[in-house]
Amino acid sequence: MTTERLIYLPLGGAGEIGMNAYVYGYGAPGAERLILVDLGVTFPDMETSPGVDIIMPDITWLEERKDRLEAIFVTHAHEDHVGALGHLYERLGAPKIYARAFTANIGRGKLGEYGIGDQAITTASAWPEVVEAGPFKVGFLPISHSIPESSGLVIDSPEGRVIHTGDFKLDLDPLVGEAFDPDLWRDVAKPGVKALVCDSTNVFSHHEGRSEITVGPEIEKLVSQAKGMFVATTFASNVARVKTLAEAGERAGRSICLMGRAMRRMIEAAIETGVLKDFPKVVSPEDAQSIPRENLMLLVTGSQGERRAASAQLARGKYNGIKMAEGDTFLFSSKTIPGNEKGVIAIINAFSEQGVDVIDDSSGLYHVSGHANRPDLKRMHEVVAPQMVIPMHGEHRHLREHAKLAGEGRLSSIIAVNGMMLNLSGNAPEVVEYVETGRTYLDGSVQIGALDGIVRDRIRMALNGHVTITAILDEEDEPLGEPWCDVKGLPETGRSRASLVEVLEEDLAQFLGRADSRTLGNDDKLEEALRRVVRNSANEEIGRKPEVTVVISRLSA
Amino acid sequence: MTTERLIYLPLGGAGEIGMNAYVYGYGAPGAERLILVDLGVTFPDMETSPGVDIIMPDITWLEERKDRLEAIFVTHAHEDHVGALGHLYERLGAPKIYARAFTANIGRGKLGEYGIGDQAITTASAWPEVVEAGPFKVGFLPISHSIPESSGLVIDSPEGRVIHTGDFKLDLDPLVGEAFDPDLWRDVAKPGVKALVCDSTNVFSHHEGRSEITVGPEIEKLVSQAKGMFVATTFASNVARVKTLAEAGERAGRSICLMGRAMRRMIEAAIETGVLKDFPKVVSPEDAQSIPRENLMLLVTGSQGERRAASAQLARGKYNGIKMAEGDTFLFSSKTIPGNEKGVIAIINAFSEQGVDVIDDSSGLYHVSGHANRPDLKRMHEVVAPQMVIPMHGEHRHLREHAKLAGEGRLSSIIAVNGMMLNLSGNAPEVVEYVETGRTYLDGSVQIGALDGIVRDRIRMALNGHVTITAILDEEDEPLGEPWCDVKGLPETGRSRASLVEVLEEDLAQFLGRADSRTLGNDDKLEEALRRVVRNSANEEIGRKPEVTVVISRLSA
Repeated sequence: MTTERLIYLPLGGAGEIGMNAYVYGYGAPGAERLILVDLGVTFPDMETSPGVDIIMPDITWLEERKDRLEAIFVTHAHEDHVGALGHLYERLGAPKIYARAFTANIGRGKLGEYGIGDQAITTASAWPEVVEAGPFKVGFLPISHSIPESSGLVIDSPEGRVIHTGDFKLDLDPLVGEAFDPDLWRDVAKPGVKALVCDSTNVFSHHEGRSEITVGPEIEKLVSQAKGMFVATTFASNVARVKTLAEAGERAGRSICLMGRAMRRMIEAAIETGVLKDFPKVVSPEDAQSIPRENLMLLVTGSQGERRAASAQLARGKYNGIKMAEGDTFLFSSKTIPGNEKGVIAIINAFSEQGVDVIDDSSGLYHVSGHANRPDLKRMHEVVAPQMVIPMHGEHRHLREHAKLAGEGRLSSIIAVNGMMLNLSGNAPEVVEYVETGRTYLDGSVQIGALDGIVRDRIRMALNGHVTITAILDEEDEPLGEPWCDVKGLPETGRSRASLVEVLEEDLAQFLGRADSRTLGNDDKLEEALRRVVRNSANEEIGRKPEVTVVISRLSA
Repeated sequence: MTTERLIYLPLGGAGEIGMNAYVYGYGAPGAERLILVDLGVTFPDMETSPGVDIIMPDITWLEERKDRLEAIFVTHAHEDHVGALGHLYERLGAPKIYARAFTANIGRGKLGEYGIGDQAITTASAWPEVVEAGPFKVGFLPISHSIPESSGLVIDSPEGRVIHTGDFKLDLDPLVGEAFDPDLWRDVAKPGVKALVCDSTNVFSHHEGRSEITVGPEIEKLVSQAKGMFVATTFASNVARVKTLAEAGERAGRSICLMGRAMRRMIEAAIETGVLKDFPKVVSPEDAQSIPRENLMLLVTGSQGERRAASAQLARGKYNGIKMAEGDTFLFSSKTIPGNEKGVIAIINAFSEQGVDVIDDSSGLYHVSGHANRPDLKRMHEVVAPQMVIPMHGEHRHLREHAKLAGEGRLSSIIAVNGMMLNLSGNAPEVVEYVETGRTYLDGSVQIGALDGIVRDRIRMALNGHVTITAILDEEDEPLGEPWCDVKGLPETGRSRASLVEVLEEDLAQFLGRADSRTLGNDDKLEEALRRVVRNSANEEIGRKPEVTVVISRLSA
């Protein structure tokens, strides 16, 4: 006998910060109708994913069940929530997508890159309006975050109400977008909430979160004292911050110039959708060039040290015809995300060489986080008073700490990482299945699996260098001439001071000279033997066993 | 007419934190007798130096003048000051090396790896004893740091006295090793100091530095409350901290076990040289296995998340037969050096999955820095009251800020980065020459230049993948059979859904079919053309232009 059930299955975002993708389902086991909340990306690095363009959740499980997928709901327009829409839309059977106006605007840009029309995303209104999607009714519940129109989702099913917070903070004055409205949230929670699926990012921050409004006066002070050009970077999607910076510049009598595609795109979207009503007049980069630097403020992309963004380009030299100079000020109105420290520090040092004064995030005055801190999470638990708390949007350590926090409030909780399917139907979450999940890489124009071995081979070449061995054999399996080597990424000479290539070729020739016909006649054996000769010989010479490609050519009679 | 002069030339450590190497010289221009202060390493990363083992300063300038090198003086035993001694000793003509007992002990280990005997390093006593080295008299002036027996150097020349601080903090109670003695330093400075060449690491830390003694009570509280096994990591060379941790464990009734080679090596050296007199009894890893976990404390290497160190191995599973378990505590009594965040966070998450409570450095309670903060630097300037301050041991931003700080105290200063030779003879530092400097990589067993292109090729293969093209031509320059491809680190299929290798081979075959004899007869032309075919064809298929090795075999008649 089967009964219907309400399930939760994170495919990304639970056990990591990035590439969010959360499945909910309702129905008989194995036949649940499904919705997906968010479809984001995460970013590659040289250490684990060299050459990769974008990392997305492996959605194979959902793809195999796309006939049961009712819709995708997108909570807000950050890349880790919206970034994979375009890449995975077709594989999911071109499902309906719902988002509020600003998010929809950005999302349509993502789909447009794949030639998918604007109608693919339906603009949804805020709660109390709801969207019907199979057995679900889903409403967008406004909440404050570091991007306009972030929303929690009210997910109603026959098994009760789930609130999925999305990313949030409790900001009563976020400047742009809606404030957190505790009365509204309490109202929505009043009928009883089965599960609060809740952002965990800042669970280790012990002080109460600060409002976006607190940074304005500090920034204003800074800008008013600056002598040369004033340049500031922040997350382009933090429209409120960009506005605060621009207004501080305007008040100090500076012309404002936005630099970097993302910066312009976000402000455009905010204006188009009516989220942003009054923004200081901006000048184009071309016009900026003729404005005296003490009257100019640049707002630029690249707060994380991204090599191609405006900040890094200014650090290396010119960008859009503008160059930093002694006496200018550069402000990071942002925090450095762990892993990006080296890139950011490189920029700071480059500016230092140019005589530019850099103000980073160490004082805490010029940036506030977009996520709820520990006391704020506690407050959210209290406002919603759910049956259970499911921590999401966090690495394992965040989920674990958040579950502990829920426990302190005597709320049932669980650490559910990617691939753990929970049944939320009972009084406490219950693990019902482990689903295979992982990462899909966008690699050039191709989607590959993180474990396909392709990137592993690239990492090995980076660590060990590469040798190509070529050997030609005649019709009688006798070597024709001597084998030769081409090397890439290896020292030219080693221990013997002779050319590495010559040493390798001589050892190969000696080996071929004494190889028996069984080896010479068998491609696999010969390849393996030649590889071993080169790896051992290189190890002797240069203390390193390179990756080897063996090319055996046999002349046919 | 030439006059004698006193010069300063950083070959490493000025414009970066790491691989310290500072040259001083006295004599006629171009004929100065030289001494070298420190010879350290810095560590590679996947981003810029994949596969590299160790990074050292390029000492070519000094090697070419090794007949003028009187001696090397080593301030303390951190890797960034002592780590390159063994690798570069012979190239510098096996010079005399001086260090105090603990540093000499560690240094001898480095030289021993190259079969160089212990006598290569002369153990020096502390100030007021001095070592004569050509025109210089050099004394080791004790100062506190995060390793025993760190010393500033008093460098006397006919042009006056220079004080080279080495790494330091102003700690009046460092627990192990000598305290900062302001009277001693003032005394030494009394005759007048020409230049204070001074550590800049913590110039951005605005509060006064804290003493090593402040962490003991906090650690003790933590250990006394722990339930399961208690594991702590710190920099192995921080002998005082290791002792503090061990004593806290002993007081809580725990047996102490040191894990990781560096941890045991440092404690051994400290005991051998009399620096460390009383250290709690330790048990071997084998014996530790039979001790109840609530009675056990492990002190382990790997505070920076190093993959092969004890911490990372415990995070992945067993180390020395011991496994972490639910309820254990793991303490980072260390700070995370920028760039190491991802590795450290990976360990924290792995422990979280094991149910281990991790205490990191975010509270600031369980670690203090070994470097002088801004107010301490100011105090050092005042104590020494030099004619000029030369900031060293810092990235450009640190040197610049430190020079500003000196300026606030009305001291002459300059930002001198690697390769800038200063004449210190006058009343203010003067740049007299720019010397070519850079980085030398220990790559396997070979020393290569950072700009040789070897590592660049490895990075390119990691980013772009690699294709080997093989083509055989007969005696008439006609293709013999079809060309073929081997790929590494590339997707198997792309846009056309056909095998990438087959698509490339077909395009190559088509090209060869229509190639003219001028191309076919010329190796360079043919190679370039084949490479272009593959790169364009791959770009079409997979959106990526791979690195290409072309092997052309010509059969001779």
